[in-house]
Amino acid sequence: MEVLIDAHCHTVVAGELDAAAFELACTEAHLPAPAGTSYLDSQVGLALRRWCAPALGLPGHAEIGDYLARRSALGWRDATRTLLRSAGLTTLLVDTGLDGPDRLDPATLGDLAGAAVHEVVRLETVAEHVASTGVDAAGFAAALAEALERRTAHAVAVKSVIAYRAGLAVPAERPAAAEVRRAAGDWLRRGGGRLTDPVLLRHVLWAGVGTGLPLQVHTGFGDRDLALPAADPAHLQPFLGAVDVPVVLLHCYPYHRQAGWLAQVYPHVYLDVGLTVGHLGLRADTVLAECFELAPFGKVLFSTDAYLLPELYLIGAAQFRHSLRRMLDAWRADDAISAADAARLAERVCAGTARRVYALPPTGRAGGSA
Amino acid sequence: MEVLIDAHCHTVVAGELDAAAFELACTEAHLPAPAGTSYLDSQVGLALRRWCAPALGLPGHAEIGDYLARRSALGWRDATRTLLRSAGLTTLLVDTGLDGPDRLDPATLGDLAGAAVHEVVRLETVAEHVASTGVDAAGFAAALAEALERRTAHAVAVKSVIAYRAGLAVPAERPAAAEVRRAAGDWLRRGGGRLTDPVLLRHVLWAGVGTGLPLQVHTGFGDRDLALPAADPAHLQPFLGAVDVPVVLLHCYPYHRQAGWLAQVYPHVYLDVGLTVGHLGLRADTVLAECFELAPFGKVLFSTDAYLLPELYLIGAAQFRHSLRRMLDAWRADDAISAADAARLAERVCAGTARRVYALPPTGRAGGSA
Amino acid sequence: MEVLIDAHCHTVVAGELDAAAFELACTEAHLPAPAGTSYLDSQVGLALRRWCAPALGLPGHAEIGDYLARRSALGWRDATRTLLRSAGLTTLLVDTGLDGPDRLDPATLGDLAGAAVHEVVRLETVAEHVASTGVDAAGFAAALAEALERRTAHAVAVKSVIAYRAGLAVPAERPAAAEVRRAAGDWLRRGGGRLTDPVLLRHVLWAGVGTGLPLQVHTGFGDRDLALPAADPAHLQPFLGAVDVPVVLLHCYPYHRQAGWLAQVYPHVYLDVGLTVGHLGLRADTVLAECFELAPFGKVLFSTDAYLLPELYLIGAAQFRHSLRRMLDAWRADDAISAADAARLAERVCAGTARRVYALPPTGRAGGSA
Repeated sequence: MEVLIDAHCHTVVAGELDAAAFELACTEAHLPAPAGTSYLDSQVGLALRRWCAPALGLPGHAEIGDYLARRSALGWRDATRTLLRSAGLTTLLVDTGLDGPDRLDPATLGDLAGAAVHEVVRLETVAEHVASTGVDAAGFAAALAEALERRTAHAVAVKSVIAYRAGLAVPAERPAAAEVRRAAGDWLRRGGGRLTDPVLLRHVLWAGVGTGLPLQVHTGFGDRDLALPAADPAHLQPFLGAVDVPVVLLHCYPYHRQAGWLAQVYPHVYLDVGLTVGHLGLRADTVLAECFELAPFGKVLFSTDAYLLPELYLIGAAQFRHSLRRMLDAWRADDAISAADAARLAERVCAGTARRVYALPPTGRAGGSA
Repeated sequence: MEVLIDAHCHTVVAGELDAAAFELACTEAHLPAPAGTSYLDSQVGLALRRWCAPALGLPGHAEIGDYLARRSALGWRDATRTLLRSAGLTTLLVDTGLDGPDRLDPATLGDLAGAAVHEVVRLETVAEHVASTGVDAAGFAAALAEALERRTAHAVAVKSVIAYRAGLAVPAERPAAAEVRRAAGDWLRRGGGRLTDPVLLRHVLWAGVGTGLPLQVHTGFGDRDLALPAADPAHLQPFLGAVDVPVVLLHCYPYHRQAGWLAQVYPHVYLDVGLTVGHLGLRADTVLAECFELAPFGKVLFSTDAYLLPELYLIGAAQFRHSLRRMLDAWRADDAISAADAARLAERVCAGTARRVYALPPTGRAGGSA
Repeated sequence: MEVLIDAHCHTVVAGELDAAAFELACTEAHLPAPAGTSYLDSQVGLALRRWCAPALGLPGHAEIGDYLARRSALGWRDATRTLLRSAGLTTLLVDTGLDGPDRLDPATLGDLAGAAVHEVVRLETVAEHVASTGVDAAGFAAALAEALERRTAHAVAVKSVIAYRAGLAVPAERPAAAEVRRAAGDWLRRGGGRLTDPVLLRHVLWAGVGTGLPLQVHTGFGDRDLALPAADPAHLQPFLGAVDVPVVLLHCYPYHRQAGWLAQVYPHVYLDVGLTVGHLGLRADTVLAECFELAPFGKVLFSTDAYLLPELYLIGAAQFRHSLRRMLDAWRADDAISAADAARLAERVCAGTARRVYALPPTGRAGGSA
């Protein structure tokens, strides 16, 4: 099996999950499905039964009830290890902004997966932590810079979720120090908490750029907290024109064709297919090919964006391998690409581009920071 | 043939049509095609000759002139009955907002189709009727509520065309009574007529929500009266977050991927493929599959959105059956879905979900209101 | 080989190109690709090696270094002639707004290609030239009208790049004379140069409409000078509703489905697949089919939008022929279209519609103006 680097993922739950919680973790919804329907009656559900049931020793397409019973019988830790190992990932770049006491720590996640782990630092989480330390408005910017320097000392990237908080129509200019101070004052007086002020979000984004690390940006679909049209990555053009760190556009769907164009015309811009491949299941064939329209082949990266469930790691990895092979087979059948070029493209999107962009060590098993 | 419920359609012309009128009824255009071209030289035209010519005893792909001659020879009533019966629809949910003296009444439409009929009440039409009754500004809101209660007593859904009148960027809030009174005063002073005032349109939409019935909303393409970017259903997010009746997004194309996401993250939101499947002809294979990307399978509904021509009923139904089977066959060939799951998906999109959402009686032939 | 009219293209470089300049001419980017990547590691690169290498006597998929060595050995003039002839184009409609001393003049381009040449006049270039002639604000509008009349005497179309300068959300109204005079005064006082004033751009667009010629409009992707969301052709609706000359939407991707709808509901609107087919290489199969969803078949035109490299002529033409045949073969395999209808569709998109819209003489080799 070829080397596969998961360039953007999250940790998983450390414990048993009941059927309702499991179902909700398979979707971007946060409320139960209407009576008579199930979120597992979906592309994710089909993919789960196709790729994960055999990994736990069941026939492919086993019913979801049988799958959950089997998962329970194995216990969450064994099931997690088996599913993660089956994903065959050599390296995980873990966004640590969604950690919690009931979640695996990144090192344990890596041990169970048999993969090296590197950290991706979520910018808004760091800012919210700084706000909780008793800093005042005048000291906020310096405290944030200091915290980011410390937190990213061993990280391979930073990540922004500004799409959720203010949308991607970010002005090109860094906000002025006085503006930041004023906005920080307002925020801190309200006790901090979830950061939604657009000036501060923009300042935090630029503080991320200041680390010099690659910047991962959530774009496209997610949960309903975001306004979808405002998450079109094309809105980032002014910001992209103003920075020169590598910017990796995560997810992108349904604006992945727009993202492909950005990846062609901005040398420092990349397109990551994580979340999209996993959530679309068998439709990943089509959407992957759409990602490879305008984007140069060395600008597309694989990730799972898996979160909470080890199943999402296996679905993301297995469906990606399958769909990539089907896409390249179709291109070969049309005599549109040589076998050597197809192999080169696959190597890049699976591992080579991630290694280059995130400056990862050449061996799979590196001394990650997390 | 499986049970197929047409969850959104309109009545058809009661009478003969000349070639020019027939051609124009096959398109969303309202002006003749330029010299040397024809609107029937299109996906709809191909689908018409493929699916309707054999129903009238001609070979598949018969020339359009031969088709129209045959239709004339049969007479509109026989042709209409034959085409509607060939569509094999068990139940029709008819939007009665486009009725007229030269159109079939819903009961006759159902008789010719051999189908049960239920009514969908178009909100703006009711409001415009109320305005013509001599009501004053102070009484408008109550008169509308009363009219809706009466008109929907036996209806299964209400429908909004606010996309045509003001776009879908509807604020989440119900307009205040004073605002509504003022806007109603302005409208009534101008003599009523076509309702385009954004405050009143919003009030009418909320009055529709107040009926408790499922709300069908025109989204995506239609005729050129609408501004296409304003018909992106994603603009509805604030409104969707504020209501809890089932909301069925009609048509959606070319924003059907956005609609699929809405159907995943809002439990009460559904995606209806009507109009799109019919107008896209053979391309329905592709677009149907795009609808089944993020939308849970129990959230997608079939309809024809047929209007004026019985041919559009048959095209909508026959192309849908064909494209759905091709889509599922391709999934089966990839071993991505079991035969049982494919059958379950088909049953839901054809009938099961419509029955659930619109609370239809279990038998095909129910005592509809229309 | 069927007649193929290139309905929108540009001239090519008259001279040798080094590898870096060649690579940059294959992309919409204007900065080098990041170290370790290449813009030729892309759909354009695959298509170039597939279609152009054999034309120069190399095996298909030859490495790019071998290709460039071969091209050098032949010399630019022989390579250009061979590549252009291999494209098999009978007529070229050349946008002359990007000419320069190091470029082939249109007549020589036509001679090398063995094709008739007609001119497309770029409106903004004419306006910028008028501004350099010493005209004053009061005389600008008349001087522009006079220049356009002279420049278009033998032209077949005019072209606008307003998408790059102000976006496509153009108000329906022609700007008032006083507004134009004021804006012209400001521009001329600054010494003219690149025209970016929205009022003047709109005036220039309307002056183009005033010629009565078909209007080609850049829409969709291009280089990063444009804001992609503002290049969605659907923003043109108010303008389209106000004019009646034929309007040809160029490129359109990723908004080509929106363009297809415009081509259905506005009788005078057309969709040109140039740039998109060439840049997408093997993915042209898919995107061509998306263009043929809502657009009537007599509303879609072929062009290459080739610029600088004769390779882009050959890629555009060869990939288009290949993808069109594959699309129609798939439709035939589904029994969705008759052989005669498929041939008619192909004839129209290849040549018939261009002849009609641009009023081209019936023979391939006409006495063009350029």
